[in-house]
Amino acid sequence: MLAAVPVSEPLLLREDRDGVATLRLNRPRQFNALSEAMLDALQREIGELAADTSVRCVVLAAAGKAFCAGHDLREMRGHPELAYYQALFARCSKVMQAIQSLPVPVIARVQGIATAAGCQLVASCDLAIAADTARFAVSGINVGLFCATPSVALSRNVSTKRAFDMLFTGRFIDAATAADWGLINEAVPEAELDAAVARKAEVILSRSPAAVRYGKSMFYRQRQMALADAYAFAGDVMARNMMEEDAGEGIDAFLAKRIPK
Amino acid sequence: MLAAVPVSEPLLLREDRDGVATLRLNRPRQFNALSEAMLDALQREIGELAADTSVRCVVLAAAGKAFCAGHDLREMRGHPELAYYQALFARCSKVMQAIQSLPVPVIARVQGIATAAGCQLVASCDLAIAADTARFAVSGINVGLFCATPSVALSRNVSTKRAFDMLFTGRFIDAATAADWGLINEAVPEAELDAAVARKAEVILSRSPAAVRYGKSMFYRQRQMALADAYAFAGDVMARNMMEEDAGEGIDAFLAKRIPK
Amino acid sequence: MLAAVPVSEPLLLREDRDGVATLRLNRPRQFNALSEAMLDALQREIGELAADTSVRCVVLAAAGKAFCAGHDLREMRGHPELAYYQALFARCSKVMQAIQSLPVPVIARVQGIATAAGCQLVASCDLAIAADTARFAVSGINVGLFCATPSVALSRNVSTKRAFDMLFTGRFIDAATAADWGLINEAVPEAELDAAVARKAEVILSRSPAAVRYGKSMFYRQRQMALADAYAFAGDVMARNMMEEDAGEGIDAFLAKRIPK
Repeated sequence: MLAAVPVSEPLLLREDRDGVATLRLNRPRQFNALSEAMLDALQREIGELAADTSVRCVVLAAAGKAFCAGHDLREMRGHPELAYYQALFARCSKVMQAIQSLPVPVIARVQGIATAAGCQLVASCDLAIAADTARFAVSGINVGLFCATPSVALSRNVSTKRAFDMLFTGRFIDAATAADWGLINEAVPEAELDAAVARKAEVILSRSPAAVRYGKSMFYRQRQMALADAYAFAGDVMARNMMEEDAGEGIDAFLAKRIPK
Repeated sequence: MLAAVPVSEPLLLREDRDGVATLRLNRPRQFNALSEAMLDALQREIGELAADTSVRCVVLAAAGKAFCAGHDLREMRGHPELAYYQALFARCSKVMQAIQSLPVPVIARVQGIATAAGCQLVASCDLAIAADTARFAVSGINVGLFCATPSVALSRNVSTKRAFDMLFTGRFIDAATAADWGLINEAVPEAELDAAVARKAEVILSRSPAAVRYGKSMFYRQRQMALADAYAFAGDVMARNMMEEDAGEGIDAFLAKRIPK
Repeated sequence: MLAAVPVSEPLLLREDRDGVATLRLNRPRQFNALSEAMLDALQREIGELAADTSVRCVVLAAAGKAFCAGHDLREMRGHPELAYYQALFARCSKVMQAIQSLPVPVIARVQGIATAAGCQLVASCDLAIAADTARFAVSGINVGLFCATPSVALSRNVSTKRAFDMLFTGRFIDAATAADWGLINEAVPEAELDAAVARKAEVILSRSPAAVRYGKSMFYRQRQMALADAYAFAGDVMARNMMEEDAGEGIDAFLAKRIPK
């Protein structure tokens, strides 16, 4: 019998089906740690997704038992230089912001654990559905490294004292708590996770692509503006959306009680 | 027998009782859609309420089975021009902001459905009490029109991922979920809706009118400021409130354990 | 028998044990009202805590039946001058912000009632654990004085409509509701309150002091920034944290599956 020849697998797998692109982190034995190479792969794929008009929804998934355990600590320890770390966290932050800048919704599909920058990934996605056995932590504090960049995403999803508690104790919360606190949208039995993610993607795919893109282009931007500015911006976006064929046909069909074309 | 002569009813009814002004949207057959005329009526009435010192609390209610189904889609389709839509959404946004600028609290009384700009109306009121059978959606996406301006109000009431989910899927949430997520304050059995709204208005009416007005004048403004600025502003407001007779008498009565005059 | 000679006790007690400094408000008969003298004592002690590198966690506690009933209304009524009130609220706001500026986490230990500026104290602490019998209100409105400065802290902890409801009705919420709304982290049986606070402090003490200080120095600051600015700031903080010995040793121990030194 021949020994199995190890084949080097790509760090990040992409699978497209019917307008849904699934990116799968693929370092299962390292709990999908975000090494430099993994961050580069993510940045590159997100860039390609952004330019691909056939993609209408993205699922961010992960191979193996864990969703993502955050940065690659071994690699980090190999470069004990301030400039290296500054560049690394800048690169990681760019990936997180690129998810929000994608023109289409991104759904995190979470199993096992999502810790540190892995929890930040969940917080940075637009929607998140997790197995009810999944657990979440911003646990850098446990090894002496405060999860500073994850706190940016976490504290924009979860209320102040809850975010503080997670960040300063490193405690895990279960999926039900994560859903209750707004970190994820839904916790479902593991066996139903793929179906739940597919169902959410299907709903988004059944909506007007133009309307979804108008929405994604403005949702986070308006949130950072003062109320009057947010309204001025949103009103203009909505007026432009109304000039699209999809909106005209969608409304006409609704008024005529018929199926839109 | 003579046929009933249809009498044209006003779009918006106002009824005042004991310091509580109830504005009632009155296009029940159109689910109280926010036509141009309805928006104008709202803007006008809100302007009058703002100037009327006898009014100490406003209830925003709606006739018929639904609270409000959002914009008047038929009217909108009759004007397929960018400038028209820009002006329309600006007008609507002005009404929403005028609710927050009113010097007294506004309670939404919600039954049936509150969708799109109707859901935004609920989000824009200071307080909201709904029948437990009421349902909420920002459902423009379902007809190809992303609820951009409603997202401004919704995302300032409901956490990020929940707001995103509602906006990009158009899903309905029930009243219990709306209360759990903070979109409304309370869901009560339909038969108790009027009593619950009256009770809340009564509490507000039992408070010092001056204190309520100081509060409404600063609450949303401070929320948009950086912490130090918010405190500087709030401290000044509170000092001025202390100089009012109501505060002096209220505190003296409290200290003497007697009923304030 | 001789009558007991009343001994003047300090307004604020400090007790240090193993890196945890407990500040105890000590005007139990006045429900620990925040008189000028009490605010001064707090400001002074917080200043000393900030400079004391042996302190790694602060507990804010209160003697007697109530946590804190807010400002000292009798004292306030003795100085009916705008400039006095402006100075008083500025002083109080400074104390509240000093809690957030402390380099280490502050846990509120809450029993009885926390009202007006007392509720603001709870909101201003980083973490809060309360007896399940505790109750919370921003009840200035009940005596004609809108809780303007408390609204600054409350509305940064609790969602908009819930904060509005509390501020404009003066209603009390119980500890379970406060936990559900995010105003406190946890409600526990009274008999277990000290143990729950000690347990939380212990977890924080078991973490790297450097990492905790990096975290506290950036958490609230980043929250007020736009996303890109927050990430730039957080990335730099995290890189500097990585250069600390604690992080190196913590990560090395983690990778080697051994206890860190």
